[in-house]
Amino acid sequence: MTYLMRFLPILTWGRTYDRETATSDLIAAVIVTIMLIPQSLAYALLAGLPPEVGLYASILPLVAYTIFGTSRALAVGPVAVVSLMTASAVGEFAQQGTAEYLGAAIALAFISGIMLMAMGFFRLGFLANLLSHPVISGFITASGLLIASSQLKHIIGISASGHNLYDILTSIGSNLGNTNLITLVIGLTATGFLFWVRKGLKKQLLGIGVKPFLADILTKSGPIAAVFVTTAVAAVFDLASRDVRLVGDIPSGLPLPHIPSFDSALWLQLAPAALLISVIGFVESVSVAQTLAAKKRQRIVPDQELIGLGASNIASAISGGYPVTGGFSRSVVNFDAGAATPAAGAFTAVGIAVATLFFTPLLSHLPQATLAATIIIAVLSLVDLGAIKRTYAYSKSDFTAMAATIIVTLFLGVEQGVVTGVAFSIALYLYRSSRPHMAIVGVVPGTEHFRNVDRHKVATGSRVLTLRVDESLFFANSRYLEDRIYALVAERPEIEHIVLMCPAVNSIDASALESLEEINHRLSDSGVDFHLSEVKGPVMDRLQRTDFVAHLSGKVFLSQYDALCELDPLTAHISESHTPKKAARSDIWDGPEI
Amino acid sequence: MTYLMRFLPILTWGRTYDRETATSDLIAAVIVTIMLIPQSLAYALLAGLPPEVGLYASILPLVAYTIFGTSRALAVGPVAVVSLMTASAVGEFAQQGTAEYLGAAIALAFISGIMLMAMGFFRLGFLANLLSHPVISGFITASGLLIASSQLKHIIGISASGHNLYDILTSIGSNLGNTNLITLVIGLTATGFLFWVRKGLKKQLLGIGVKPFLADILTKSGPIAAVFVTTAVAAVFDLASRDVRLVGDIPSGLPLPHIPSFDSALWLQLAPAALLISVIGFVESVSVAQTLAAKKRQRIVPDQELIGLGASNIASAISGGYPVTGGFSRSVVNFDAGAATPAAGAFTAVGIAVATLFFTPLLSHLPQATLAATIIIAVLSLVDLGAIKRTYAYSKSDFTAMAATIIVTLFLGVEQGVVTGVAFSIALYLYRSSRPHMAIVGVVPGTEHFRNVDRHKVATGSRVLTLRVDESLFFANSRYLEDRIYALVAERPEIEHIVLMCPAVNSIDASALESLEEINHRLSDSGVDFHLSEVKGPVMDRLQRTDFVAHLSGKVFLSQYDALCELDPLTAHISESHTPKKAARSDIWDGPEI
Repeated sequence: MTYLMRFLPILTWGRTYDRETATSDLIAAVIVTIMLIPQSLAYALLAGLPPEVGLYASILPLVAYTIFGTSRALAVGPVAVVSLMTASAVGEFAQQGTAEYLGAAIALAFISGIMLMAMGFFRLGFLANLLSHPVISGFITASGLLIASSQLKHIIGISASGHNLYDILTSIGSNLGNTNLITLVIGLTATGFLFWVRKGLKKQLLGIGVKPFLADILTKSGPIAAVFVTTAVAAVFDLASRDVRLVGDIPSGLPLPHIPSFDSALWLQLAPAALLISVIGFVESVSVAQTLAAKKRQRIVPDQELIGLGASNIASAISGGYPVTGGFSRSVVNFDAGAATPAAGAFTAVGIAVATLFFTPLLSHLPQATLAATIIIAVLSLVDLGAIKRTYAYSKSDFTAMAATIIVTLFLGVEQGVVTGVAFSIALYLYRSSRPHMAIVGVVPGTEHFRNVDRHKVATGSRVLTLRVDESLFFANSRYLEDRIYALVAERPEIEHIVLMCPAVNSIDASALESLEEINHRLSDSGVDFHLSEVKGPVMDRLQRTDFVAHLSGKVFLSQYDALCELDPLTAHISESHTPKKAARSDIWDGPEI
Repeated sequence: MTYLMRFLPILTWGRTYDRETATSDLIAAVIVTIMLIPQSLAYALLAGLPPEVGLYASILPLVAYTIFGTSRALAVGPVAVVSLMTASAVGEFAQQGTAEYLGAAIALAFISGIMLMAMGFFRLGFLANLLSHPVISGFITASGLLIASSQLKHIIGISASGHNLYDILTSIGSNLGNTNLITLVIGLTATGFLFWVRKGLKKQLLGIGVKPFLADILTKSGPIAAVFVTTAVAAVFDLASRDVRLVGDIPSGLPLPHIPSFDSALWLQLAPAALLISVIGFVESVSVAQTLAAKKRQRIVPDQELIGLGASNIASAISGGYPVTGGFSRSVVNFDAGAATPAAGAFTAVGIAVATLFFTPLLSHLPQATLAATIIIAVLSLVDLGAIKRTYAYSKSDFTAMAATIIVTLFLGVEQGVVTGVAFSIALYLYRSSRPHMAIVGVVPGTEHFRNVDRHKVATGSRVLTLRVDESLFFANSRYLEDRIYALVAERPEIEHIVLMCPAVNSIDASALESLEEINHRLSDSGVDFHLSEVKGPVMDRLQRTDFVAHLSGKVFLSQYDALCELDPLTAHISESHTPKKAARSDIWDGPEI
């Protein structure tokens, strides 16, 4: 039962579900439904898919997440970045508007669903950790800019193409002559209206005494209002005859159960993109879910979230939808509107299903420019230039990874951007760890403390050299340690003892062990004894499973002071006024470097 | 001048070169020359190249290393593993025995030389650190097995092919019927003889009173003796007419200056293999050079070694040779024979040049089986099964990377093997660091020390929770930290303060900073204050460049004891007999875990 409860969180919250909770969930569901309808249509357009596919992706996936998800506020469905990635991945195999294109998008959702589920069962959620914050932030910013620029053509009313910023902008530039003025007016008006709704409306409503909750709902209804008004205008003035592009006929009725394509060649080709979409979608979704859960001291279980999102994507695929994940803005709306359990998602699904059944004929006159306007306003909030500045100020190496991600995403492609970012983060991390901070230390006279000789007035003897390493030892830095020690010995012919002080060494891997053995061996060859001091318990346990300590030319000392007392008592007792201080307090913050 | 001296180490040692040093170098050069002649022929055979190419690769490269290298004992030339990698890389583009094959091998040396030089100029030697010891050890062992099995066909006197163990063995199996019995007798005799020379001869010679130095030389001369005897037998009995494969005519005379192919398509195709060969060759060479340098308290400069090896490979290419690097056995012989400066290498080059000019006609009757026997005996010393066992005992994750390297090298290919090993090492390292050791700690009553609550009798209050992290915080573990903290808070509704104790945190990257900000923000949302304690100086400096500390709901405490005194004075002073002990000594080794 506990095992089942782990995989079916609904069994936990479902048992205490009551009328009051249901009311909260229902209210939240109505608000999210109103918000989701234009969003679903718009993101389907962004993914290059027929508008109804966006609606399909907002029904069954929500039900699946209700059963398998652990977040009480997450709203699943099509989102901007994943839609862009879908367009980029599927666009390589098929032409937009063809059955192959739709089939590949559906297959992508299915493969992504299976991958997410597998990652959940095998608890591989940690893979998402490879995406560092600066890389994600840079990727989302670049995606936002790409998405916004890709929608410009709908605002201007021209045809344009391209999957990177340069292609998109040159394609728009060369087609500017075909601008459809009526479309442009609708597009600019809708964009301006939505921008005002987002930025100024709430404050004005609060100013005239509207209650915050209502002001919030009115603000979030901006897109649906824009949809209503522009659809009505397009219908009344028959704008289709003026070459204004409209959404056109949307098949009404619920999606039929759909068996995704099992073409193994297609699967293999889509697999890399599906993996990236899964991981990016998971990271985005989990960070939203965690933010919302923390506000109520609730917990989400990342590995179970993988299963929830996997089930949602499989549900999306078998109902003719495309890849989905937890969206930021709708989840916040859901949370603010009072959603108390994942049941709110199921209620939203019912709302979208009703809309799909009965309201789609009303949307055939909806101008694509209106949808493009909702997308542009939505994604501009993803663009976070401040994060770029902050990262630059904090860490140049993080900034390098971020800049590489942004540039490659904008000018080469979204998948390449993510991969570049991950590769840069790992490479830079390994580079940093490959040159750990090391300091030659001496004893602070009259104490048992040891400090960097370059920074403090300390005593050292000429026969004993103590080197403190401030990093775990592993393959990427073990040779650097060897180099440093050999260099020190080569420079100082009078040395008889080298002590490696290890208070910050949390682990020693097999490469580092071999390097220590080499150091021991080579120092012996040149007549120098090799000692360790202040080795941590778990590290020592592991060393004792080998013959390293038996072969060590020197000793392993409990404390560095013990080492000095034995190897060089004169230096150890250099001051007669021997008054040891407490170490814990003074060991930190005594300068830029300790 | 110093700049020039950095790039031309010969300017340093050359200024004090005297007659005595020259004598030592000359003696060493004679011994190494005798050893290098059969080795060069054999490794050329292994690389699928005409035998003279092995000799060419043993002349100019040695002169180049003499000028640019920093090791005083390293002997450069063809080596087994690099020869195998050359055969594998070039075999993909051309048939053995064709001009294209030879041209590609020469181009490979040239590209590898340029890469090594570039890595040296840009000080990229640290890239070699990505090859962990277990991966290199596994790769060398697997290569040794592959090489030995690939030579079996020469011992048996059949044709066989294949680049992985399975293909090689099945190919041999299906051709066993064509065994040439005379070849088999020569091959087995030579192998048995060389095995006896290597394992038993030296001891027997010492037993009958031969001086160690002479015994050593006689032992190292085993291969040249086998070459002489089998060549004589083949010539006298005209074994060529009995279908025994001989080396055949070797063009005598020095190599003509050669301009390597500049076909950009070929370069692009060879580049990945050239990179792997460069890195593997560099790692092998540097570890030999370091071992020998340490014995005399000398230094080698890894980044300058890259330039030395790069120059050697370019020299090899322009004299019609193939990729070279520093070899283990010949360098040890060189060192033991008394080589005092890199000039010994130049003298060896003269020796090989003389042999190439005058002795090659004598070698036309040399049976290939003899060369195969020298290769087999030489590479079996590379196979280190003990290292596999030791690695398994010390670290399962290192063993996993090693096993993957061995299996992929044996059954898929050498390049794939190296790449797999590197990928596994990095992935496993990131996985380990992604779940750092963390402990909830409490105060040891009556002291200012803090210990893991699960291991020690310590005091904790219910309102303050202290978590100690034993690892630097970075992108791969920052989300894990978030998860842990949210879980702790969700389990303990009574908590008001969380203190993160950071004595082992050597750095905090931008991802981890963002996670700390998130933690601070979310804990605030749920009414919990977030504090830090014992933050190291350099880490604190960096944090102070951001607004993190300003936004922190809690404080940054110098010591954990300060934190407890302020947040929970009752627990801090739980024992009346307050007698603080010194920390440095007792902080370590008080159990399997601190």
